[in-house]
Amino acid sequence: MRRIKCTVSYDGTNFFGFQKQPNARTVQGEIENGLKILHRGKDVKIHGSGRTDTFVHAIGQVFHFDTELTIPDERLPIALRSILPDDIYILKAETVANDFHARFHAIRKEYRYRILTTEQGDVFKRNFTYHYPYPLDIEAMNKAATHLIGTHDFTSFSSVRTDVEDKVRTIEQLQLKMEEDELVIRVVGNGFLRNMVRIIVGTLIHVGIGKMSSDDIPNILAAKSRDVAGPTAPGHGLYLWRVEYNN
Amino acid sequence: MRRIKCTVSYDGTNFFGFQKQPNARTVQGEIENGLKILHRGKDVKIHGSGRTDTFVHAIGQVFHFDTELTIPDERLPIALRSILPDDIYILKAETVANDFHARFHAIRKEYRYRILTTEQGDVFKRNFTYHYPYPLDIEAMNKAATHLIGTHDFTSFSSVRTDVEDKVRTIEQLQLKMEEDELVIRVVGNGFLRNMVRIIVGTLIHVGIGKMSSDDIPNILAAKSRDVAGPTAPGHGLYLWRVEYNN
Repeated sequence: MRRIKCTVSYDGTNFFGFQKQPNARTVQGEIENGLKILHRGKDVKIHGSGRTDTFVHAIGQVFHFDTELTIPDERLPIALRSILPDDIYILKAETVANDFHARFHAIRKEYRYRILTTEQGDVFKRNFTYHYPYPLDIEAMNKAATHLIGTHDFTSFSSVRTDVEDKVRTIEQLQLKMEEDELVIRVVGNGFLRNMVRIIVGTLIHVGIGKMSSDDIPNILAAKSRDVAGPTAPGHGLYLWRVEYNN
Repeated sequence: MRRIKCTVSYDGTNFFGFQKQPNARTVQGEIENGLKILHRGKDVKIHGSGRTDTFVHAIGQVFHFDTELTIPDERLPIALRSILPDDIYILKAETVANDFHARFHAIRKEYRYRILTTEQGDVFKRNFTYHYPYPLDIEAMNKAATHLIGTHDFTSFSSVRTDVEDKVRTIEQLQLKMEEDELVIRVVGNGFLRNMVRIIVGTLIHVGIGKMSSDDIPNILAAKSRDVAGPTAPGHGLYLWRVEYNN
């Protein structure tokens, strides 16, 4: 028996998120179906670094599973790609220590959010960016972002549908950058609450259109209430970019 | 009654091409359904600049239709976007002369073909590029391209499923360019036969991997037989980029 750490990219468009659910197409469900075929009918459970919501994409999601297969690490992605549907792409597989855990050992995650800022839409980006054709005050958004960086109680930036007790998290980086027609928001932190990145983005957009001021952010954090932050930006603009581990 | 020229972009992934067919989802079929709603149940026929095949995309396809609606040109795209499915995006509508014809008056077309050259696939490009992970000799492909530029009988580069008699066409430009990880092949000409761009691309790829020599191209043209050219490259890498008219 050995433990495998897998890095996977997926197009979230046609998934009800990562986490397995009955009667819904999920990334975990599809990967476990594929592993069951590879293991000749034996059930294999995978453990992701965390969930991603409906429509949310991944460039570098990580999961682990245990196997008795003797297939070499470098052949495993090729074998899995041939079984899995084409909106999931296994990038890498590595044998790791038997106590490695994709969720509990993650020390840092990076998300990116893509906002298409052009007046006209782009049919090729409709599932891959959030089209927001109104002028945004990037300077004000940057100022708001600086208030979010650091260690805070992010209750106001978390879905009420959560059972996590401790809502203190650390945002190490929160950067806005124009890349051609897109405003890309990059967030790096040690952990994220449910919908946290999407609520941060929705709040930054509200600052960008003047519905909120950048100076409101400290009060929003202090209020510890989901009601005071901005809306939850749609899932299809969000990418789980990478998950980092020690070593 | 006035004639409208429309420019439209579409993601070809979920279409059986542009041209209307019974029992198949097509771009023309969807647009005519939308126009019928806009015209309160009256059938409206559109005329495209030409067909595109299954999975082929368009950045700037052009079609025309006649209408008695008094809606201003600049409002028409907005009205149609609200009716049409989200893989079709009407970019522009203009009232034109009553004898304008999207197909017969087109003087020039540009196509582009995107080849993803990386060893690993990209889940976000799977429907939008042709993934070809083998080394390509771009220099040889460029040399082959120069033999195709100009006025030739392109019978060898045309699907046998065609009823066009005259197969002489002029390729004005045929350029290969690396754009990051993609080899983009750009073709401009006064008209194209069925599958012509895809057979040109398939032939250039065969030159790129050494299955054919660039010096074979003149003989392939002279043979006037589909059998001697390379394979038809897949549709999902191809884009109808723009259609040009006088004025």
